Amino acid sequence: MDDMGNGRVVFDITMSLDGYITAPGDSQAAPLGVGGDVLHDWIAAAGAAGDPVLSRLFTESGAVIAGRRTYDNSSGPDGWGTGPIGDVPVFVLTSRPTPPTGVFTFVTDGIKSALTQARAVAGDKDVYIMGGADIARQYLAAGLVDEVRIHHVPAVLCGGVRLFEGPVAGGLEITDVSSGAGVTHITYRVTESPKP
Amino acid sequence: MDDMGNGRVVFDITMSLDGYITAPGDSQAAPLGVGGDVLHDWIAAAGAAGDPVLSRLFTESGAVIAGRRTYDNSSGPDGWGTGPIGDVPVFVLTSRPTPPTGVFTFVTDGIKSALTQARAVAGDKDVYIMGGADIARQYLAAGLVDEVRIHHVPAVLCGGVRLFEGPVAGGLEITDVSSGAGVTHITYRVTESPKP
Repeated sequence: MDDMGNGRVVFDITMSLDGYITAPGDSQAAPLGVGGDVLHDWIAAAGAAGDPVLSRLFTESGAVIAGRRTYDNSSGPDGWGTGPIGDVPVFVLTSRPTPPTGVFTFVTDGIKSALTQARAVAGDKDVYIMGGADIARQYLAAGLVDEVRIHHVPAVLCGGVRLFEGPVAGGLEITDVSSGAGVTHITYRVTESPKP
Repeated sequence: MDDMGNGRVVFDITMSLDGYITAPGDSQAAPLGVGGDVLHDWIAAAGAAGDPVLSRLFTESGAVIAGRRTYDNSSGPDGWGTGPIGDVPVFVLTSRPTPPTGVFTFVTDGIKSALTQARAVAGDKDVYIMGGADIARQYLAAGLVDEVRIHHVPAVLCGGVRLFEGPVAGGLEITDVSSGAGVTHITYRVTESPKP
């Protein structure tokens, strides 16, 4: 997308069968919503040996972009600790100017600025867009995502935050499918769309 | 579920990435909604040689249950012709008493009655619940489905008829995953739930 590096921009998330990425009532006490931990059962099932899909995310990401609610909900006592991926820098989109702390930089001037900063530090590694859904939708609608990886789990949550609420710029095509216990990992490539 | 046969009750449907089984504006002229034909691109891509997933549905189904809107939308000039699966009997749930015609029997006394009739003719073969979504949800909520097969396609439709709008009785677990061009087929077994 520009000449800052060869890394991809990847959005990676777990989604319920009925399209939710959190159950209702997400908060710092329940980052995935009340009853939403079922979304991450597959991660727990992968066990200490780790899951190749998760390992990949950890080794290939050079920067992370997250929304403020994701940050706030995940920075509690059982949250990220230093950061979601060790010492990988995290750019948090927010409307409230906030001094940087640890691996976190707070970005108040929009998704493109956050992406530019993230790509600059990621170099040839990937930029991993964590979400929330609103952030991911903005990047998708702007045609700024190369790859969407969805961990499809068979939970039916009946409420919460939906991943898709509007269009994705360009189409999506399946490039990889793999299975784990209680999960189907599908990688979708965002196909080129005419730039506005 | 009863002693009428060993066939399963299967709900089989194609769903968009954002959870829709039709695009907006479904009608006899556009049974999958306006722009919804993309849902069945994978069937077209499978070509004349046929798709093993589809072939299985055709050979293993001994009866079909469909809603009235599905019937009405599919009985146009480009619709089912004799029936959706050759001469396999179809039980159409409707509130309007309608004389039987061809393979079609119209059932006005509810989903359990339709299932009893379908199982009686299916014998050891499966009962295939085609939908629409409202019919499928009623069977799922009543705990009357053994297996849900979803053909997940990467289309984002942004509207139409959603498959899931409420709970599924019992949980779902993944029992099979396979890939085709532009589609991921996932089979979910409905796990036992305490009967009310």
